[in-house]
Amino acid sequence: MIRPIGSDELLPRFVYDVDEHHKLMHEAESLPSVLISSQAAGNAVMMGGGYFTPLQGFMNVADAMGAAENMTLTDGSFFPVPILCLLENVDAIQGASRIALRDPNMEGHPVLAVMDVEAIEEVSDEQMKIMTQKVYRTEVMEHPGVAAFNSQGRMAVSGPIQVLHFSYFQDDFPDTFRTAVEIRNEIKERGWKRIVAFQTRNPMHLAHEELCHMAMERLNCDGLVIHMLLGKLKPGDIPAPVRDAAIRKMVELYFPPNSAMVTGYGFDMLYAGPREAVLHAYFRQNMGATHFIIGRDHAGVGDYYGPFDAQAIFDEEVPKGALDIEIFKADHTAWSKKLNKVVM
Amino acid sequence: MIRPIGSDELLPRFVYDVDEHHKLMHEAESLPSVLISSQAAGNAVMMGGGYFTPLQGFMNVADAMGAAENMTLTDGSFFPVPILCLLENVDAIQGASRIALRDPNMEGHPVLAVMDVEAIEEVSDEQMKIMTQKVYRTEVMEHPGVAAFNSQGRMAVSGPIQVLHFSYFQDDFPDTFRTAVEIRNEIKERGWKRIVAFQTRNPMHLAHEELCHMAMERLNCDGLVIHMLLGKLKPGDIPAPVRDAAIRKMVELYFPPNSAMVTGYGFDMLYAGPREAVLHAYFRQNMGATHFIIGRDHAGVGDYYGPFDAQAIFDEEVPKGALDIEIFKADHTAWSKKLNKVVM
Repeated sequence: MIRPIGSDELLPRFVYDVDEHHKLMHEAESLPSVLISSQAAGNAVMMGGGYFTPLQGFMNVADAMGAAENMTLTDGSFFPVPILCLLENVDAIQGASRIALRDPNMEGHPVLAVMDVEAIEEVSDEQMKIMTQKVYRTEVMEHPGVAAFNSQGRMAVSGPIQVLHFSYFQDDFPDTFRTAVEIRNEIKERGWKRIVAFQTRNPMHLAHEELCHMAMERLNCDGLVIHMLLGKLKPGDIPAPVRDAAIRKMVELYFPPNSAMVTGYGFDMLYAGPREAVLHAYFRQNMGATHFIIGRDHAGVGDYYGPFDAQAIFDEEVPKGALDIEIFKADHTAWSKKLNKVVM
Repeated sequence: MIRPIGSDELLPRFVYDVDEHHKLMHEAESLPSVLISSQAAGNAVMMGGGYFTPLQGFMNVADAMGAAENMTLTDGSFFPVPILCLLENVDAIQGASRIALRDPNMEGHPVLAVMDVEAIEEVSDEQMKIMTQKVYRTEVMEHPGVAAFNSQGRMAVSGPIQVLHFSYFQDDFPDTFRTAVEIRNEIKERGWKRIVAFQTRNPMHLAHEELCHMAMERLNCDGLVIHMLLGKLKPGDIPAPVRDAAIRKMVELYFPPNSAMVTGYGFDMLYAGPREAVLHAYFRQNMGATHFIIGRDHAGVGDYYGPFDAQAIFDEEVPKGALDIEIFKADHTAWSKKLNKVVM
C-alpha cells in the first residue's frame, strides 16, 4: 500500500487502548480546560483518525507560518495549511502543562482531546494577515473561510494531543463516518492496489459518476473511495441520510462489484480552494488512496479562485516529492448529444 | 440479498435524521427517565443498529414469555429470546407515556433511547423462573447469564424505542463497531452473494481460521464476515486493539483479496448456549449473511450445555421456516500429523 506521509504507518491520535482511554477521560475532568473553536475541533477529529499523519497535535506559530508560507514546517516536514488551536482567552490554562480541549459542537461540551502544552503564543495581526492571504488568497471577510479563520481568538496553544472521541460525526453519521485507519483496513481487505479517491459534499449527479468512471479507467484503478465531507448542514441542504442513500444506490446500479466504497470524514470545510485541494490530497494519501480527483473549482467558493487553480498548485507550489498520491486533473464535463454520453 | 427477518428492509431504531436526532436529544432531557440494566442497554444498541429487525422495542411480558417458551411472540412472529427492559423501581416513570432510558455503561448516564411506554408490568417469580429455565436450561445462579438476568428488577417496561447513540461501543471500538446497516451496505458494495458469518470474542487461532476456510469452501461462499462481540473486558483478557490487529493480520496473510471483512457488534454476552446460538443466527441473517458457523459449545459456559446442543436446537426447536440463514455445523477440529493440516 501507499505509505502514509512522513511515516511507515498511520499515527492516529485517538486513544485506542480502552483502559488508557477510560483513565484519560477521568484525568481530563480534573484538568484545566478550554472550549475550542469548531475549526480546531475538526482538526482534532482528523488527527484522531490518522488523516493528518505524522502531525501529533496543534502547531506553534512558527510551524503554522511555515505551513502557510511554503507548506513547510520548521523541521522541514510538509503540511499544506496551518493547524492551529486559536483561543480568545487563556486565563484558565495559564501555566498548565496538560489541558483538556472541550468540544464546541456537542451538547455539554465534553472533552474532545487532552493536550500536552508546549507553548501559548499570541499571533500578531500581521501574522494572521499573512496566513489568511497565503491560505485563502484573499483577506475579504465575505469569504466564509476567511471569516471563520479570523473569528477565532489570537492565542495559539500548541502541543501534541490525545483524542478521546470523534465529536458528533460518529453520532450523526454512524454508518458513513470512517477514520483513515478504517479505510486503510478496508482497502487491504478488498485487495485493491490502485485506488482513486473522490471528494464530495453532495449527492453525486451523472457528471460526477462519469468522472469517477473515467478516472478509474484512465488510471487503471481497481478501487474508488467516495469520501464525503460530513458536517453540519445548512437549511435547505439535502439531509445526510438522503444523500448517503442516493450515493449508495448509484454505486449499486452503476459500479461493478468490489470497485467502490462509500465513506465519510468529519471536518469543517475551509473553502480555501487550491490550498484545501492540497490538504485533501494529503489526507487521501494517508487513508490509502494512490490517486485523487480534482475537478473544476475544487473546494472553492464564489469567484475567489480560477477554475483550475486547485490543479495548478500541485505543479507550482507543492514541494517536489512531498506527496506520493497522484492527482487526476479533471476538465470540464459536458453531455454530448452526438455520442449520447458525458464527455470530458 | 437475503431478506431481513420479517421485513423487506432493515428497520434500525437509530434516529438517522440529524434534525430529528437533535430534537429528540433535547426532548429527552425533560422526559421522566430511568437507568436501565446493562443487558437492556445492549438490546437497545442492537435494535439501534437494525440487528433485531423487525423488533421495534422492548417486549411486554406476554411476548417475552412466548419468546422464552417457543420463540414465538403473541402476533405469531419469531424471536428466540425475551428482549426485556427490567427495572427495580418505576416510581419515576409511573403514568408517563414517553420516557428516556439512561445508559448504565457510560459516564454520566446519557440518554440511550426514548421509549413510548405501552405497558409497565410486574414479572412474577414463576415467570422469571420459566424464562430462566427455557432460555438458559438451568436456574443455578452460578451460571453467569442466569445471574445477570435475575439480578435485574421485576418491573417490565415495554414499547417501541428510538435509539440515540450506540453506547460506549463506537467510542471504544471506533474502527471495528458496525451496525447491521453498515454490514449490509458493505456486502452489497463488495458484490458478495453467499456470505458466511463467524462469531468470535477472541483472537482467532489456526483451528478457527481453518474452520472459516472449510465453511467457505464447502458452502461455496464468496464472502466471510468475522463478527466480533465487542464489550467490556475482564482483567487478563487480551486488549481489544491487539485482538483486532491479530485478526486483521490473519485476514491479510491467509485470506484472498475481497473474501473477508473484520467487524464487530456491541452486546452483553448471555452465555445461553443453544438459545444464544439461535439469536446469533437471527441477527446474522439481518446483517446479510446467508450462512452462519456454529461450532462446539457455541456461546456456552462451564458444562451447562452439551457440545452440539447449539446445533441441534435449529432442528429441534426453531420453528420451521423462521430463519432463511443456513447453519454450518462444525465438528471437532484437530491437527493431523499425517496430513500436516487441520482436519474436521
